[in-house]
Amino acid sequence: MTSRMENKSYLVQMNGNGVHNKSIENGKSLSGNGVNGKDLHHVSVRGALYPSKAKSRRQRWDVRPSEMANNTLNPIRAIVDGMKLTPNPEKPMIALSIGDPTVFGNLPTDGAVLQAMKDAIDSQKYNGYAPSVGYLKSRQAVANFYSCPEAPLEAEDVILTSGCSQAIDLAISVLCNPGDNILVPCPGFSLYKTLAVSMGIDVKLYNLLPEKSWEVDLLQMESLIDERTSCMIVTNPSNPCGSVFSKEHLQKIIKVASRHCLPILADEIYSDMVFPGCSCSSMASLSSDVPILSCGGLAKRWLVPGWRMGWILIHDRNDVFGSKIRQGLVKLSQRILGACSIIQGALDSILNNTPPSFYSKTISFLKTNSEICFNELSTVPGLNPVMPSGAMYLMVGIDMDRFPDFKNDVDFTERLVTEQSVFCLPASAFEYPNYFRIVVTVPEEMMVEACSRIREFCKRHNRAGSTESTDLDH
Amino acid sequence: MTSRMENKSYLVQMNGNGVHNKSIENGKSLSGNGVNGKDLHHVSVRGALYPSKAKSRRQRWDVRPSEMANNTLNPIRAIVDGMKLTPNPEKPMIALSIGDPTVFGNLPTDGAVLQAMKDAIDSQKYNGYAPSVGYLKSRQAVANFYSCPEAPLEAEDVILTSGCSQAIDLAISVLCNPGDNILVPCPGFSLYKTLAVSMGIDVKLYNLLPEKSWEVDLLQMESLIDERTSCMIVTNPSNPCGSVFSKEHLQKIIKVASRHCLPILADEIYSDMVFPGCSCSSMASLSSDVPILSCGGLAKRWLVPGWRMGWILIHDRNDVFGSKIRQGLVKLSQRILGACSIIQGALDSILNNTPPSFYSKTISFLKTNSEICFNELSTVPGLNPVMPSGAMYLMVGIDMDRFPDFKNDVDFTERLVTEQSVFCLPASAFEYPNYFRIVVTVPEEMMVEACSRIREFCKRHNRAGSTESTDLDH
Repeated sequence: MTSRMENKSYLVQMNGNGVHNKSIENGKSLSGNGVNGKDLHHVSVRGALYPSKAKSRRQRWDVRPSEMANNTLNPIRAIVDGMKLTPNPEKPMIALSIGDPTVFGNLPTDGAVLQAMKDAIDSQKYNGYAPSVGYLKSRQAVANFYSCPEAPLEAEDVILTSGCSQAIDLAISVLCNPGDNILVPCPGFSLYKTLAVSMGIDVKLYNLLPEKSWEVDLLQMESLIDERTSCMIVTNPSNPCGSVFSKEHLQKIIKVASRHCLPILADEIYSDMVFPGCSCSSMASLSSDVPILSCGGLAKRWLVPGWRMGWILIHDRNDVFGSKIRQGLVKLSQRILGACSIIQGALDSILNNTPPSFYSKTISFLKTNSEICFNELSTVPGLNPVMPSGAMYLMVGIDMDRFPDFKNDVDFTERLVTEQSVFCLPASAFEYPNYFRIVVTVPEEMMVEACSRIREFCKRHNRAGSTESTDLDH
Repeated sequence: MTSRMENKSYLVQMNGNGVHNKSIENGKSLSGNGVNGKDLHHVSVRGALYPSKAKSRRQRWDVRPSEMANNTLNPIRAIVDGMKLTPNPEKPMIALSIGDPTVFGNLPTDGAVLQAMKDAIDSQKYNGYAPSVGYLKSRQAVANFYSCPEAPLEAEDVILTSGCSQAIDLAISVLCNPGDNILVPCPGFSLYKTLAVSMGIDVKLYNLLPEKSWEVDLLQMESLIDERTSCMIVTNPSNPCGSVFSKEHLQKIIKVASRHCLPILADEIYSDMVFPGCSCSSMASLSSDVPILSCGGLAKRWLVPGWRMGWILIHDRNDVFGSKIRQGLVKLSQRILGACSIIQGALDSILNNTPPSFYSKTISFLKTNSEICFNELSTVPGLNPVMPSGAMYLMVGIDMDRFPDFKNDVDFTERLVTEQSVFCLPASAFEYPNYFRIVVTVPEEMMVEACSRIREFCKRHNRAGSTESTDLDH
């Protein structure tokens, strides 16, 4: 009976508004029948009188993206999308810009990795929901793989995520509030800023010094720290530099964090991708007091970035985080859950059955390609390549005053595409103008060809001590 | 030279602070050597004088989880973790609480789905990064699968996500700002509130009416709308109710949204999981003007919730969203990227090669189990089950006044575990007290056994017209 009444009054209201709405759609003023609509809107439901929203009601469609959406900025896209990238039709395009080791097919993952996945699928044991932080067995496998005497790990210190990106997202989300600021390397991976700014967190850039093979300018870094600084991000090995910090330098960075009681987010997605001869310590293995959230994943070392298998390793031997930060990470992990259950199911076997030869083969390839690129470009007047020690990148400085044809690194790399069909990412994408980044995962012959084209390009445009006539002569 | 100087002054500073820091660790006051520390802190780097942060420097560790972490609340966990769940040792536990169709092994996914995955792995074509919105081919496959004359879809109307949870997260994130409010069904899936509250978005609950097979109380819903209401969430078919709205009722809901120019987030993860005889329209197929973000995925219909393959279907035939909302979704998708590339690679074949018999087998099983459960419990005095029309759930009302032994639904279901080893989720977890939810994916014999135990439990505790002596008699 009540419900019948509701329906009736509802219909009245609906018709009232039906008409009402038409006039809205025709863009007519509502002041006239607004009162009318308002009367129709006072309806009693189970005794309660619901006020009309006629005044507050939107009168036309106006759906706008949120502040967060507007503030989610991708510098690489912003710069690359703004470039006119029309290759020279006479030369096949060579892209040295894509930070994805799989694109050329020359660096396949190991058969053991693929088999582990197929076994996980056949087992039918991994189709259901995994715990939001990941299967215990898989977390244990990661803990065992990365545990060391100086920085022991248990399964509960591991949170599995949908790629290293989500690991970084969760780590920033749990440590920072809007209005806080974080320390981020410059040049550095652009995602830190993209995530932080979208959450209303400020970014303070600390300088890496090319003349010191990209070591941190520790004094400048320390000068940035204030009471709203909630976390220091350290990327080691580095994207985009390919540099690897020495044990001593890492200790100095940790001392800065320690002096200011600042937790560290260590982006160690390239850990163990270090050239023979260099060594790379995890930050956690060197920290006595500073708590460290180490973010990593399968993407780079196992050459499967698309699989989105990442993790956070919680290093907190002095119990600075206590249970609160751990619980915070668990709660945040429940928002959208993490990595695909199949990959989680395969993780133990991926970590334990991939032959060491697979890793060493990848690394020696990256080293060889880096040396080819470095040796070639270091003899090109006007270019200053910095030899990497790991990861898959090499940064090249441009003496812009030798190249008056170009306004900046973006202009330089754009024209390199137009004339030589070689695309390198301008380091402005990493907030580091007058450099460009080369990805060294391309097949060797491509790297050789690309370098000779870059040489030709620079020879043509280099105005310092050039025998070539300049535009001014015409 | 400069760098040497830097190192020197740095060392001085470090030693200064080394001592300095010790006294911090010993918890001593710093006022004494603070000035001293400050002197040591004024260091010139490349001419610039960096001020000391001695005043602002944290003097001890105090790392706290962010507001967002603190505000990420999971009502189901909150309630279940608070329950004392100790089964009766004489009876094997039967969990009717887990919304995961895979846990009992009686509902495996189809062989074609597994084969599609293994083919994607063997192809080695899907190890690299997919575009942040998903492979075009996979988006096209989803568009083709869900496109209909009333609501046509193109590839660019599809965004692939890491599970339906991320789809819902992105949809709320793009439409709502902190301080806005969204309309959410009650009873309803708890994730909406978890996500919204964590982002500072208010939740307004609109009532579903059990006596009208869980139709929306449209007047009460409309009364909630104000100028800060940015989105209406509609779950159809419903979790936790298992109800399916009629075409007419969906049209009425859409009219409310239309009157208030309110976009709809349609959670249609259970779409097509509807019992024979009932029909289920997508909201988009019924909307002429209201733009709809329809969220779905492989989880339920293909019985692989752990794989985290979800999507957003953008329905905006009147171009209300325009390019801004679409671009917003694309930008947000770049924060952590979406679904695993292997599953994306398998998607086309999963959608096109799964035999229709697989879907119908699942649905008829769910219907049979629902009928067994409904028929059994509808003859139990004090219980009021509501027969579902789809999804995998059934809600049961409790006449609490007939069960004076129990304070509420949480107490009731807790004791049901203690005495009968049957666990049903108290509907307080869905903000709907005095009901409990039964998951109907358990094997038939378990369902039968569970129902008879529930009958025994209710018989024992039902005080209305009971011949049994009440506690008061003792």
